[in-house]
Amino acid sequence: MISRILVAVDGSQHADKALEYACDLAGKTGSRLSIVHVAEEFRNIGYSITKELEQRNIVMLQKYQSKAKKLVKGKHVNTIQVKGNDIAEEILKIADTVKVDTIVVGSRGIRENKEFLLGSVSYKVSHYAKCPVIIVR
Amino acid sequence: MISRILVAVDGSQHADKALEYACDLAGKTGSRLSIVHVAEEFRNIGYSITKELEQRNIVMLQKYQSKAKKLVKGKHVNTIQVKGNDIAEEILKIADTVKVDTIVVGSRGIRENKEFLLGSVSYKVSHYAKCPVIIVR
Repeated sequence: MISRILVAVDGSQHADKALEYACDLAGKTGSRLSIVHVAEEFRNIGYSITKELEQRNIVMLQKYQSKAKKLVKGKHVNTIQVKGNDIAEEILKIADTVKVDTIVVGSRGIRENKEFLLGSVSYKVSHYAKCPVIIVR
Repeated sequence: MISRILVAVDGSQHADKALEYACDLAGKTGSRLSIVHVAEEFRNIGYSITKELEQRNIVMLQKYQSKAKKLVKGKHVNTIQVKGNDIAEEILKIADTVKVDTIVVGSRGIRENKEFLLGSVSYKVSHYAKCPVIIVR
């Protein structure tokens, strides 16, 4: 059953933990691991700032990938970067496209309000995903 | 990281799927698996009905255990039966006592309203658990 895992990352502490859990799971189950980052879509912020943000996101995702490759011994790790403002929606779309059987998310994203115990992204993903969702805190 | 898994069951279809996922996970990660059932606490329903319900719950849990033992090749499977009306609360208490690192729950319990996409038990467990929670649908 467990053979294709997607983990969503955003630079938050919860995402770091989600990545570590996903790597442990992928390593022990011999699963393929896709690391996904949904970048915020800004409008009217100028070309140079857009480029700088894009570059920063690429570097972040590369760091996650190299950490994951070490943890799962270099096998079957790829990264996916998409743009969108509904992060949960984008994660669900990718999960469908890549046909994963398990989604791993941190309990709260980097831009999410600490008032609520569970972040809106992990809440929405666990609501609408067609496959099991692992919420890591 | 993954070495001690708790799966909550209640006789629902979602619980069956949760058990299968937990067994796959336990088998592949070599983890110990605890199968937990929280039995509803009835008052003033008479001794014989109480006994009948208790017996039914014992049989149900035995069936889950024997299925799990087959799926994970007979190793490290135990069952826990507790009574309580706040199912999520009881699951969380046991998770703490047994010191599990992963909780697996079905997305909706057998007595839960289908109006909501995510059942209140899985929602509450994923809110308050100290460890990663896997929601299976």
